[in-house]
Amino acid sequence: MNKQWLLKSRPHGEPTLDNFEYAETPVPEPGEGQMLLKTIYMSLDPYMRGRMNDTKSYAASAQLGDPMSGTGVSVVVKSNLDGFAEGEYVVSQTCWQSHSLSDGQGVMKVDPKNAPISTGVGILGMPGLTAYAGLLDIGKPKEGETVVVSAASGAVGSIVGQIAKIKGCKVVGVAGSPEKCAYVVDELGFDECVNYKDADFAQKLAAACDKGVDIYFENVGGIVFDTVFPLMNDFSRIPLCGRIANYNMTGDPEGPNKLPAFFGQMLVKRIMLRGFISFDHYDRFPDVVRDLGGWIREGKVKYKEDIVQGIENAPEAFLGLLKGKNFGKLLVQVSDDPTRS
Amino acid sequence: MNKQWLLKSRPHGEPTLDNFEYAETPVPEPGEGQMLLKTIYMSLDPYMRGRMNDTKSYAASAQLGDPMSGTGVSVVVKSNLDGFAEGEYVVSQTCWQSHSLSDGQGVMKVDPKNAPISTGVGILGMPGLTAYAGLLDIGKPKEGETVVVSAASGAVGSIVGQIAKIKGCKVVGVAGSPEKCAYVVDELGFDECVNYKDADFAQKLAAACDKGVDIYFENVGGIVFDTVFPLMNDFSRIPLCGRIANYNMTGDPEGPNKLPAFFGQMLVKRIMLRGFISFDHYDRFPDVVRDLGGWIREGKVKYKEDIVQGIENAPEAFLGLLKGKNFGKLLVQVSDDPTRS
Repeated sequence: MNKQWLLKSRPHGEPTLDNFEYAETPVPEPGEGQMLLKTIYMSLDPYMRGRMNDTKSYAASAQLGDPMSGTGVSVVVKSNLDGFAEGEYVVSQTCWQSHSLSDGQGVMKVDPKNAPISTGVGILGMPGLTAYAGLLDIGKPKEGETVVVSAASGAVGSIVGQIAKIKGCKVVGVAGSPEKCAYVVDELGFDECVNYKDADFAQKLAAACDKGVDIYFENVGGIVFDTVFPLMNDFSRIPLCGRIANYNMTGDPEGPNKLPAFFGQMLVKRIMLRGFISFDHYDRFPDVVRDLGGWIREGKVKYKEDIVQGIENAPEAFLGLLKGKNFGKLLVQVSDDPTRS
Repeated sequence: MNKQWLLKSRPHGEPTLDNFEYAETPVPEPGEGQMLLKTIYMSLDPYMRGRMNDTKSYAASAQLGDPMSGTGVSVVVKSNLDGFAEGEYVVSQTCWQSHSLSDGQGVMKVDPKNAPISTGVGILGMPGLTAYAGLLDIGKPKEGETVVVSAASGAVGSIVGQIAKIKGCKVVGVAGSPEKCAYVVDELGFDECVNYKDADFAQKLAAACDKGVDIYFENVGGIVFDTVFPLMNDFSRIPLCGRIANYNMTGDPEGPNKLPAFFGQMLVKRIMLRGFISFDHYDRFPDVVRDLGGWIREGKVKYKEDIVQGIENAPEAFLGLLKGKNFGKLLVQVSDDPTRS
């Protein structure tokens, strides 16, 4: 029989066992161009909480009565599909069930000689990719920088911190128990790990990050985000790939962990929000003068000036500026301009 | 006499004329290695509001009794400084005064043949650089994308929109009066401009951005940010260079415009916050398998698995995952793993 877990009802806030329904159905027969997979390892991941909702995200939500969505490592039991042979191991969208059919789309083969096949949904699978691309391509660590990793003993965090160590960073983990913290430091080689459930978490984290934080690999949201954020250095980076503390929330909470909807959208839409200040970009000044100067002369770019006469009127003009009263670039003419007729 | 505006007191919220004090002092005499500048154009910019506070930002705040800080275009009146001759035009930190001394540090010469010298603090100065680098280097516009520009008729916004047009984008401005909107469309060539004071601002903006928003050049904060944000497309970018709506705020406001302190820090520290999802980075999978696989084999990277036996236990394990009960990558063993002894 095909053992399945179906989505029975959608949770409001924290899910309960009542949201799931167990079912047994006959093992399906693969049709032409299909293969039958027997699940060996089914991955459970925080993102699945989002699939239980009826809201739009980067992947479709599960329908009521359908098996819970998810990936797994399976063995090919029977194949009517070119390129996949009985006995091969694959990672695919198995959903929460013991058997699944596949037409090969989005299926990745797993080589047991490379590493244990379970890593196909772990360190050599989606969590590994999340850690690798998030840290290296978005966080862009430099030697000597301080990297804070939330959920440090978790599937993603544990990899992030170890890659950061390989890249020569100081790595500070955040985890939720003394055992996890000890594992992160003693086994994974992080420099430090702080338990966010400690009463003096903020002080301990600040002490561990005595040179501030250059990269915060954001996995969790909530109190951890709020505590790390004030420690961020100039030009720091926050790869944002999860907000587990928000997943069970309904509405915008009061208190320090504000705007989960904002962060949810930042994630789901892969938005890049970056503060910047013009003087960081002074090397572009020659281009500004060449391009904008040229475009002005060619009539492609126009500009408008709102010139207030006399330095005595500066404060009033400034107060108006803050209210949007000016129209064009606000200037105070303090003395004659001999170049303008 | 040197006419000056001094910072008399620090504003709490909106500044008033009482915060400024007018003074006249003798025009200073330039010493060795100095030059005397006579201000022609003094620039007024929103960032100056921040200088009136006693809080740390990317530039030092003004001291009580000092002239208000600011840049201006001046003519060299007397020079004891190599490389600067009488009659030359320069942009420098003049502060709010009619005469200033300079040792040449941070001073840029302005060529009147290139453009009117007032542009040295405008389109060919800091506002131009802000627009140019913010749009091109951070926003990275692609042809056909939709760019929304707040404060569209302002010093920075007007340039942003025109560059975006040159780059082949659809440009929608947001401004605060029908006159400004007309100017932005008729004179600057934006495709559309919406008045944020209109009662149906949100509907008009959504209609103008019928394909969503790819770049929001964030100048203002407040209601404009809150209205644009839900329209942001996947992979959209928000160059963040100002939050004029927040500058006079005290504390975190209630209502839609939340977390000004958060955005303030994002800006001041030039933080990059970017949501991302692993499957956008599938091209990195070969690297993941090569590097992480190699590091595992070399013993440089470790991983931990928390394997729950039996699919029947999946929901309970998942609920535990959301509470951090797992320790290591959570897996459900659904059937035997023939590759593991």
